[in-house]
Amino acid sequence: MEPWANDNMTRVLQAIPLTQEHFAPFGDVIETKGARHFPINDGAIVRYHDLARIELDAAGRSLISIFECSRVSELPHRITLVERHVLGSQAFIPMVPARMLIVVAPPGDPPTPEQLCAFVSSGEQGINYRSGVWHVPLLAFDKGQRFFVVDRGGPGNNCDEKTFDDGEVLVEWI
Amino acid sequence: MEPWANDNMTRVLQAIPLTQEHFAPFGDVIETKGARHFPINDGAIVRYHDLARIELDAAGRSLISIFECSRVSELPHRITLVERHVLGSQAFIPMVPARMLIVVAPPGDPPTPEQLCAFVSSGEQGINYRSGVWHVPLLAFDKGQRFFVVDRGGPGNNCDEKTFDDGEVLVEWI
Repeated sequence: MEPWANDNMTRVLQAIPLTQEHFAPFGDVIETKGARHFPINDGAIVRYHDLARIELDAAGRSLISIFECSRVSELPHRITLVERHVLGSQAFIPMVPARMLIVVAPPGDPPTPEQLCAFVSSGEQGINYRSGVWHVPLLAFDKGQRFFVVDRGGPGNNCDEKTFDDGEVLVEWI
Repeated sequence: MEPWANDNMTRVLQAIPLTQEHFAPFGDVIETKGARHFPINDGAIVRYHDLARIELDAAGRSLISIFECSRVSELPHRITLVERHVLGSQAFIPMVPARMLIVVAPPGDPPTPEQLCAFVSSGEQGINYRSGVWHVPLLAFDKGQRFFVVDRGGPGNNCDEKTFDDGEVLVEWI
């Protein structure tokens, strides 16, 4: 029996498949499904248009970066930390299809374990966290996986953290 | 014999492999190779940082979109049009590894055939066109290929075109 199985102090989150509907309070799901689209370039290209709201404070600028995972995640997964960026949004798009484990809480005071929600992306979906949304750092299931990232650079503190005790929050499949 | 083979009026461009060094006058090559990087998230992630300069006029905002190719390109390829966006940069990143055919000319007056340069990306490279750089619309080699795009939305005309006669410009492998 796993050590958390009989521990009433553990908040066990059940990760559900990521959908725009359920993720809406936290940001955007970046995918072509259901997206506004139209032909461009004389019909050679379909443009799925404006899929995520990039947020930025007046002193900031948008950055394009690549994140490469050097550590593997798996489920069940212990959550020890969430963070938020209050000066801008943050988007992650897989550079080859790759699922992400996503754990979020609404903007506001540092979340309690009860306020957390968990999702697993399809592999082809990207996400964009709205400014101020609490979220786990990037968690992918394959070492070496790369994600294209659009976030905010500039002066000022743009990262707050909230830690949890080991065993306080656990994520498993629904 | 191909119809252009003995036609002195055809400018034949030889496409070379895309490198940051050669592409520098036109924008950024978005890749991890040679990029500034550092560990984040307690060593779980390597961040390849700030790989492209996003440009934007005061009235614009950055958009995140997905382009899907409905038509296949191949080499040799006849170039009939280049375009430029004077109000912002435009970045393309393949969502699964996929090569792009890239034909560019420096900012300024509409280019003559002699001013054009051609590149082919490795498949894992992305590109970011600087504002005002003349370039072909997205040309991929596989139908259905998707690219993640960061460009500019907002008021004003942000697309100028320069057309070439059929057979005036041809791209082939080096």
